Amino acid sequence: MLLLSTFYFPLYTLFLSVTSHPYSKLPPMFDNKDSRTELSSLGEFGLIDHIAKGVEIKHAASLKGIGDDAAVIDSEGLLTLVSTDMLVEGVHFDLSYCPIKHLGYKAVVANVSDIYAMNGLAKHITVSIALSNRFSVEAIQEFYEGVHLACDHYEVDLIGGDTSSSHAGLIISITAIGVAKKEDIVYRNTAKENDLICVTGDLGAAFAGLKILDREKKIHEENSDIQPDFAGYEYVIERQLKPEARWDMLERMKEAKLKPTSMIDISDGLASEVLHICKDSEVGCVIYEEKVPVDAATCHAAEDLGLSPTVCALSGGEDYELLFTVSLGDFDKVKALKGVSIIGHITEKSAGMYFTTTGGSAIPLETQGWDAFLEKGE
Amino acid sequence: MLLLSTFYFPLYTLFLSVTSHPYSKLPPMFDNKDSRTELSSLGEFGLIDHIAKGVEIKHAASLKGIGDDAAVIDSEGLLTLVSTDMLVEGVHFDLSYCPIKHLGYKAVVANVSDIYAMNGLAKHITVSIALSNRFSVEAIQEFYEGVHLACDHYEVDLIGGDTSSSHAGLIISITAIGVAKKEDIVYRNTAKENDLICVTGDLGAAFAGLKILDREKKIHEENSDIQPDFAGYEYVIERQLKPEARWDMLERMKEAKLKPTSMIDISDGLASEVLHICKDSEVGCVIYEEKVPVDAATCHAAEDLGLSPTVCALSGGEDYELLFTVSLGDFDKVKALKGVSIIGHITEKSAGMYFTTTGGSAIPLETQGWDAFLEKGE
Repeated sequence: MLLLSTFYFPLYTLFLSVTSHPYSKLPPMFDNKDSRTELSSLGEFGLIDHIAKGVEIKHAASLKGIGDDAAVIDSEGLLTLVSTDMLVEGVHFDLSYCPIKHLGYKAVVANVSDIYAMNGLAKHITVSIALSNRFSVEAIQEFYEGVHLACDHYEVDLIGGDTSSSHAGLIISITAIGVAKKEDIVYRNTAKENDLICVTGDLGAAFAGLKILDREKKIHEENSDIQPDFAGYEYVIERQLKPEARWDMLERMKEAKLKPTSMIDISDGLASEVLHICKDSEVGCVIYEEKVPVDAATCHAAEDLGLSPTVCALSGGEDYELLFTVSLGDFDKVKALKGVSIIGHITEKSAGMYFTTTGGSAIPLETQGWDAFLEKGE
Repeated sequence: MLLLSTFYFPLYTLFLSVTSHPYSKLPPMFDNKDSRTELSSLGEFGLIDHIAKGVEIKHAASLKGIGDDAAVIDSEGLLTLVSTDMLVEGVHFDLSYCPIKHLGYKAVVANVSDIYAMNGLAKHITVSIALSNRFSVEAIQEFYEGVHLACDHYEVDLIGGDTSSSHAGLIISITAIGVAKKEDIVYRNTAKENDLICVTGDLGAAFAGLKILDREKKIHEENSDIQPDFAGYEYVIERQLKPEARWDMLERMKEAKLKPTSMIDISDGLASEVLHICKDSEVGCVIYEEKVPVDAATCHAAEDLGLSPTVCALSGGEDYELLFTVSLGDFDKVKALKGVSIIGHITEKSAGMYFTTTGGSAIPLETQGWDAFLEKGE
């Protein structure tokens, strides 16, 4: 709908072959709608009504959602968790390959993931958008369809927001509100010496997916006759365009009676998040390259791109997996937990923060410049 | 700091003559700092640290502020109120005459005002900003100084946020979180037939101030030798650049044991807010032009601008006064309340929504086009 519709259809048809619920519910992203409704025909209040119509309230605690000065939540004596994120077109997303519906989904995921990273339950979100008249009403509707899909999947209520015009592209600001019992909350500054460092799922795929999309976009820009070729890249592209937050892993940990000693979600790359935990907890760490979980599809894509898969995991980001620490005494519990990798351990602060390569070199952990380091290290 | 520094000094020096606490604490907005620190020299995490340093937590309920995936609030069984607003440069503000520190202050005011409009107490805010490298670290610092001033004045804790780059100007997204007892909350959809319609303070000043600033900007653009002349316009300019939210009026109402039957804050102009209350409550209304409170300074500025003061009040917005309804039985209480005007009453829905001019004409209430209506009506 926005640009270059010929470019996107093949991308979507490929998705069809790799999707499962709720991904399979995402319709073709650039179907050839006959009509385009101008935003100006609705006005701001019309637009808000339009958005409010699609909202379904799931929690009795959402006493008041959209439609007053503020939303009202009955938090029943639990602690309230609040997290907020801003996404800017051209900085955080590129609509030439990120379908706007997926963007709506992903924006919610990024926010509920922060609540999960506190070991809390996300219950409410507010969604504010500023957009230029380049966007039609249908495009906004698709964005909110993605938001609603994520709300359904993660069982959160959309309780408010703001709409505004912008001179340059789309800006999204989401605030997620969650609850937790005081004794359940896990902070990022409470890792202790000898704790095991663990991570859910696999890392680096979202970054590899982004780089594949980038590459195909450039090829298409240079020669619009060449259609993008995503065969073999389905997994990394799905991880980039439609990530999931790991609520399921919190459930599994609860079942296993395993409470992390510290936790953070991986939005900026493994290296950056490990550094957050260590610096805030005033401890050191060792991470082992060979233990960092990277999917075979990510290795394949990284290889095609001339990137190190480990660098994708360390510096890539947008994985939305959970990085956490557990007491050494919980080794058996965490070992038995499906979908969790133990990637290192916490040391005393004076021992520093290190990454040990497969070749055996110990490299100080940094947030950037991994390509150079790894070449040097191996 | 940003543009045209010669243009701003006179504006500020005029402010000095009309300011009182905490306005008087606002320093010269465009002082000639010798150095300019580039954003890139700090990086995002450096910037967050920079911002976090200025934060002072006031509520014991703010268990965790900036520095983890989510903030943590102990809401002690009260209801939680959530409100969010997005402000876009060039749409909601013009930095060529809105000092960035004032902008920080005003952005907080606009949000806490929404919580007050529910008869709640604002306790926490998150502030997200996206900005281009046109802004220096000092400019951002000034923005947050304005935020902190407002936080101090309204006793709210800044508990989180996000920072991001943008390709075009400054975008601000604020979420305010408040609390209220269930029995205290006042919604906008609960006005009843025969209720009195009341408003705090006076209206239209912020809009008149904006128009004066606009006029002087244009004159200055056409001839940069001509310095703006704001003599006599201090009140309307202060209302535009540094509005206040009416927490004090909620206190007064509480003291007078007066609970509104419905309430909303005036951010989009009186007409729009009256329509919100009436439509949401499924009632009609009559508003009397002669009862609408407009300050003499606003009348003076409107006259100079060739505008009707009533139009400024009806369509202007950004007043952040409270519009509310009370039962007819509370007439004596509201009559005795300093700073409140009774401007009309609620009728049954079928009677429609009308504005009665000083000349006696009844005009259907609309959100726009008041200039034409009033000429016709009088």
